[in-house]
Amino acid sequence: MALKNLNKISLTEVAKIISGGECSAEEVLVACLSRIEERDETVKAWAHIDKELILNYAQTLDSGPVIGPLHGVPIGVKDVLNTADMPTQMGSPIYRGYKAKTDAACVAILRAAGAIILGKTVTCEFAGSFPGATTNPHNSNYTPGGSSSGSGAAVADFMVPAAFGTQTGGSVLRPAAFCGTVGYKPSYNMINRAGLMFAAENLDTIGILTRTVDDADLLMSVLLKRPLSKTLPRKAIATIGLCRTHLWEMASDETIFAVNDSVERLKAKNARFIEITLPPSFQHLNDARNIINDFERSRVMADHWYNDRELLSENIQGQLERGLSMSYKTYKKALNLAQKSRHEIKGIFDQVDFVLAPSTHGEAPFGLDSTGDPKFQGLWTILHVPTITLPTHSGPNNLPVGIQLIGYNHRDEHLLSWARWVLENLGSWQN
Amino acid sequence: MALKNLNKISLTEVAKIISGGECSAEEVLVACLSRIEERDETVKAWAHIDKELILNYAQTLDSGPVIGPLHGVPIGVKDVLNTADMPTQMGSPIYRGYKAKTDAACVAILRAAGAIILGKTVTCEFAGSFPGATTNPHNSNYTPGGSSSGSGAAVADFMVPAAFGTQTGGSVLRPAAFCGTVGYKPSYNMINRAGLMFAAENLDTIGILTRTVDDADLLMSVLLKRPLSKTLPRKAIATIGLCRTHLWEMASDETIFAVNDSVERLKAKNARFIEITLPPSFQHLNDARNIINDFERSRVMADHWYNDRELLSENIQGQLERGLSMSYKTYKKALNLAQKSRHEIKGIFDQVDFVLAPSTHGEAPFGLDSTGDPKFQGLWTILHVPTITLPTHSGPNNLPVGIQLIGYNHRDEHLLSWARWVLENLGSWQN
Repeated sequence: MALKNLNKISLTEVAKIISGGECSAEEVLVACLSRIEERDETVKAWAHIDKELILNYAQTLDSGPVIGPLHGVPIGVKDVLNTADMPTQMGSPIYRGYKAKTDAACVAILRAAGAIILGKTVTCEFAGSFPGATTNPHNSNYTPGGSSSGSGAAVADFMVPAAFGTQTGGSVLRPAAFCGTVGYKPSYNMINRAGLMFAAENLDTIGILTRTVDDADLLMSVLLKRPLSKTLPRKAIATIGLCRTHLWEMASDETIFAVNDSVERLKAKNARFIEITLPPSFQHLNDARNIINDFERSRVMADHWYNDRELLSENIQGQLERGLSMSYKTYKKALNLAQKSRHEIKGIFDQVDFVLAPSTHGEAPFGLDSTGDPKFQGLWTILHVPTITLPTHSGPNNLPVGIQLIGYNHRDEHLLSWARWVLENLGSWQN
Repeated sequence: MALKNLNKISLTEVAKIISGGECSAEEVLVACLSRIEERDETVKAWAHIDKELILNYAQTLDSGPVIGPLHGVPIGVKDVLNTADMPTQMGSPIYRGYKAKTDAACVAILRAAGAIILGKTVTCEFAGSFPGATTNPHNSNYTPGGSSSGSGAAVADFMVPAAFGTQTGGSVLRPAAFCGTVGYKPSYNMINRAGLMFAAENLDTIGILTRTVDDADLLMSVLLKRPLSKTLPRKAIATIGLCRTHLWEMASDETIFAVNDSVERLKAKNARFIEITLPPSFQHLNDARNIINDFERSRVMADHWYNDRELLSENIQGQLERGLSMSYKTYKKALNLAQKSRHEIKGIFDQVDFVLAPSTHGEAPFGLDSTGDPKFQGLWTILHVPTITLPTHSGPNNLPVGIQLIGYNHRDEHLLSWARWVLENLGSWQN
């Protein structure tokens, strides 16, 4: 068949042409693997790929009937989610070569719908902040963001149309923003977490990195057994909450521009904006998030703390030490603030279709020693609301800059509908 | 040393005498193992015990300094919680001989405090409703309850002073009530669940089965790094919500007696009772719980459904089939009812110290084919509030009957204080 650049086609499109017989699963996979071959020495997005395994599987799929809505489409899986046929190494030497007994729930469901798990994408150590090897696909001297570093870079670099990530602070949205993809964190705990190694259970949410909103929506429809979200007419009139947040003064020029420019251009599409000021107590939410993260992670990783300490980064050792010496009273206070704030946020969404806020401080920072600051994303993560970053702008170093849209808890379809509308109206940073 | 019946002493007491040098960890362990030797052919509470491993470990502990507040005390662990040195078999042939890489969080934390994991206790298949081999220690023709069947039976039968269970419907409180132990389900998700194979994540809570309230409190103080809960004076004046629930007409005579008798006797201790009528919508909570359970479990176990179906009981196959064919809309409706009800319940706890309700339909049903009905427990599980069953009464077959106390979310210490007071005032069914 004469289709070119099969690796660059969206997931939705690729699913359609494979099912329709316009190309084979193997051809798509070969295109993705060629791109990886060509680029991964620089990008280092992948922790594990077993070419023979997946090419054989693609051939098996090609020789049978269409088994589901994702027949033959390749998916990347962050290396903290279990896969029964590939190692799950958590970005840590402790798990070198470790193979889980079963697929994570989200992996098993996608496989049953026909997806091919292309491989495991690089994660920061245990989905924390100690970086893996991945570089930003637009300039390898810059961080790709983390902790879903490999998922962000692989999707942005056209190595795979979609990948799972996980977010405890900003680990889906930040790499998506820094690499220039769509990054969607559903409402807390909406994608079943069985087979995920937790960072902090009260925060962890599995998310999806794609190049289009449609693609994230398609995967959610399969995972949750729900219809696709509605496509809004281009002329739909949005009521948008503009929330610069108390972090606004930390925002770089390019982030300020991205937000202000989005407002102007959406106003030109007749959108109505309501300025949102969060309650003053919300300024403490990032601190509360850190407390919950430290306390819970120190329990999740207690076995490693007591038995494998020398194999942990100093970074994570410090976190576990903080968590284990923290009193329950401190932790409970943080949980209570979170709980209270989750109730308070509801009122905002009674007035608006969605909230627009900065995604990150700015474009990806220089260097590979840090994956950037999670505050702009973490503020919303602790609120359990669904958030999505869209790759609409760019910064002084020609790296992408995102904008963040936020919806109300468990109204994800509504958020995705509006996100599709916003991206259509603003266009991608590269166009 | 001349201490007798070391297996019958409470956890709190045993911790004290080992640390104080009045007996050794090995002596306690030997006493527990002798009891198991004598009784487990009938009770069948244990899925795995490695005598050599644990006796060696007890000797190691005895030859060193006291390492923590649980130095040398034996603990049972339900066989759905991972242990690095013993198999975790989930009550399923799929996991025969399976060994996890790391200890579950709750196991690692107790070990670090000096506890000896005596062995793994029998669970229903995947903590569901298909029974394991365990019998009721008071009469082996009756069910011990489930799914934490082995934990309930082992603690009641003086094989171990405490054991972990898990509750998705009534899987901690029901076996505790049927076997005649204290069964405590903390506020949802209070004991870190890393290393637990989920049943349904929005419901699963790790709980503790003990013979005294103090023992549950001690374990929680270690797990959460908090002080022990306050001991209330015997003359404390309680304000108690009496909540017969809409299930009252399903209650057997012995359950009705247990509740009414508790009310009378606590009134004699100057307790004030307020009759609580739950909102009518709460009648649908058990149905909502079933929906959430089916939907989520079908994701958790998707890998097994697609790859090991013939090794699953018909019971669980039916559940997975229901869950996988269920629409997201149905699931979301159940989640929404749960969420709404969790807000509504708060008002009740503004007026009372705790709520008193039936624990189970009645004493353990005859036969081993079913572990009993979870409705009386599940109603509260879905509300995420902490609950505890106390072994205060007995039924026509001389089997124990419990009463259930319920507290407000994350006010567990308060509930435990009052539970201690209630059990002191009412006494145990066997005294």
